[in-house]
Amino acid sequence: MRLIALLVTGARALAKPPAVIGQKLHDVATPALLLDADAFERNCETLKSAVALTGVRARPHMKAHKSGALAKRQLELLDVHAAGVCAQTVSELEAAVDAGVGDVLLTNEVVGADKIERVAAAAKKSSGRVGVLIDDFWAQATDLNLALDDDVIVDAYVEVDVGQRRCGVSPSEAAPLALQISRLKNLRFAGCHCYHGLLQHVPSKAERREAVADVADAVREVRNALSAAGLAEFVITGGGTGTLAADRDSGVFDEVQPGSFCVMDLQYGSIEHEIVFERALEVLTTVLSRPAPNRCVVDAGSKAVDLVAGPPDVEGNRPYRSGGDEHGILDLEAGDDLAVGAKLRLYPSHCDPCVNLHDHWILHRGGVVVDVLAVDARGSGC
Amino acid sequence: MRLIALLVTGARALAKPPAVIGQKLHDVATPALLLDADAFERNCETLKSAVALTGVRARPHMKAHKSGALAKRQLELLDVHAAGVCAQTVSELEAAVDAGVGDVLLTNEVVGADKIERVAAAAKKSSGRVGVLIDDFWAQATDLNLALDDDVIVDAYVEVDVGQRRCGVSPSEAAPLALQISRLKNLRFAGCHCYHGLLQHVPSKAERREAVADVADAVREVRNALSAAGLAEFVITGGGTGTLAADRDSGVFDEVQPGSFCVMDLQYGSIEHEIVFERALEVLTTVLSRPAPNRCVVDAGSKAVDLVAGPPDVEGNRPYRSGGDEHGILDLEAGDDLAVGAKLRLYPSHCDPCVNLHDHWILHRGGVVVDVLAVDARGSGC
Repeated sequence: MRLIALLVTGARALAKPPAVIGQKLHDVATPALLLDADAFERNCETLKSAVALTGVRARPHMKAHKSGALAKRQLELLDVHAAGVCAQTVSELEAAVDAGVGDVLLTNEVVGADKIERVAAAAKKSSGRVGVLIDDFWAQATDLNLALDDDVIVDAYVEVDVGQRRCGVSPSEAAPLALQISRLKNLRFAGCHCYHGLLQHVPSKAERREAVADVADAVREVRNALSAAGLAEFVITGGGTGTLAADRDSGVFDEVQPGSFCVMDLQYGSIEHEIVFERALEVLTTVLSRPAPNRCVVDAGSKAVDLVAGPPDVEGNRPYRSGGDEHGILDLEAGDDLAVGAKLRLYPSHCDPCVNLHDHWILHRGGVVVDVLAVDARGSGC
Repeated sequence: MRLIALLVTGARALAKPPAVIGQKLHDVATPALLLDADAFERNCETLKSAVALTGVRARPHMKAHKSGALAKRQLELLDVHAAGVCAQTVSELEAAVDAGVGDVLLTNEVVGADKIERVAAAAKKSSGRVGVLIDDFWAQATDLNLALDDDVIVDAYVEVDVGQRRCGVSPSEAAPLALQISRLKNLRFAGCHCYHGLLQHVPSKAERREAVADVADAVREVRNALSAAGLAEFVITGGGTGTLAADRDSGVFDEVQPGSFCVMDLQYGSIEHEIVFERALEVLTTVLSRPAPNRCVVDAGSKAVDLVAGPPDVEGNRPYRSGGDEHGILDLEAGDDLAVGAKLRLYPSHCDPCVNLHDHWILHRGGVVVDVLAVDARGSGC
């Protein structure tokens, strides 16, 4: 009664990519993750303009697109205004290092022998710098320090809880932890990570600014304490797409970490913005069935468009209802002649988990596929 | 300004599997998808007993586990009481055919040149039978018929809407569509697919039985109409884990299609059952951070445990709150000494989309890894 192993190596064949270069979008197999390459590039140019001349650098977060190639491309477009990129998982870190990104900050704690070994290997492989977050000296910093080869240094950023109440030490604990870390041989205390994710989607521009002012007060306390402790060289990094303008203007951040800006989604599209980014991400779907005049069924269910943050917008303003894991149900108005086989674009509610559901990005310009990229850092969080 | 293609073939390297055979569960890299191999096998034995001597055969649905190897194993355990397996996407169909499953019914409409070609190729490759659903003669049946080689026959099942209001023709339209299909050269009218997914989670046993009685009335109408039209050989297939006993006893189903029974989840675990299946699926997670006495953060967020149907149950009854895509927040009681690095098991709310988030199944017996299988049919629905 023993199951036979199908897999002993780390590789498997994926289904063939749903598109080839030169193909028209209408012929792409669905559900497909579309990236408007022109809009993606304009969004990077907009970010560059937003931070240029301010002294603040951008560290785009690849959790939004999960592609080493796109991370590398962002850095090229941002030029000297980029500090590097952020990764959220070890897989994202590995994809960025493999793509040749020179400075990758894993904005998460690393725990467990397997992951610590992978971070150590990525740091050794990197031609630049690799960083991680620490909020516990013994369980995180010392284990990582021990796992590193003598000639490899990893940047350690202390994670400070500036209001989100997830991971992170309190502002008053930051400097003592930084001093502890600075005594380790293979970790370099690089700064503090101060991120408040819950502020990113506050709809009102004014209310977001007010909330960021509270974050800035906490960050200022951290900066002062680090300086008082004699720690001269450090970077304060944090923030996201929603709070980008306020973080930039706060005077306390050296780096900002927008992720969604490059693709955008329905959640971000619906807040009041100070810096305007374009929709670059869509999911292409096909009508599978047209069983009634007021209803059709498409092939994009909760496995193609993450529904935790709500249903996607549908081309032609047709309301989307969940039809389960593989189906979406569209309620149609009288006279809508949408037929079986028709293709529609969906605009997803939340980019990160939506992208995570797909194996390939289909890049297009003017209705034609110009590239197919692996979503090489997708996965459950390993 | 052109992005460089990283991928031109259909294969990519995945992160290494999070476990090796012989490893203790505590050493497995997380988040990891666990399968209790003993419980999985007992669930298959329970299904076998439930249908044995009834004349009804089981066609287990691989949308629950998305593994060709597990589909094959289920058939071995069910022996002569299995009709074959169900697949929900072309990728699932391909994984089952590749694993050597002899009769695979894709319980979905197939639309678009790419997918029709893949179904045709799978049918040619299969050593047994391949079936699909049809609810539109022109857009689905004729295109598939044309794509098949002269010597290849695909089973066509008419999908009938027996109350779910998703895809499917009405009961009165089933026989006319079946007759149309029976005139096509390479499609064999094999029967009708009568599935009402919304009934599967009705909590009350009695209310589920009542609802299935309405489904049975619709199915009886279909059976009578098919017979009256002179269609003698056909199979009525449908139902799921929730309605299994009622479908079996209804007298109108030739086959039942339970999927979740083999792994179970929180949704199914909380309804009133007639046939009892065991929990075989869990997600293993690690405590990343312990920032406060009443809070810890684990490495399983919405990318490791699908949250659409609600939060998972946590080992030790600790309440789980979403901390985003890569984090879960557990509210702890006073005195809970859960430390950074501790491993916990989560019991997910809905098995299908949870399994879809993972690349590997970790099979275990008695706390030791006994196999690692690719979730080879996961994906966005292509």
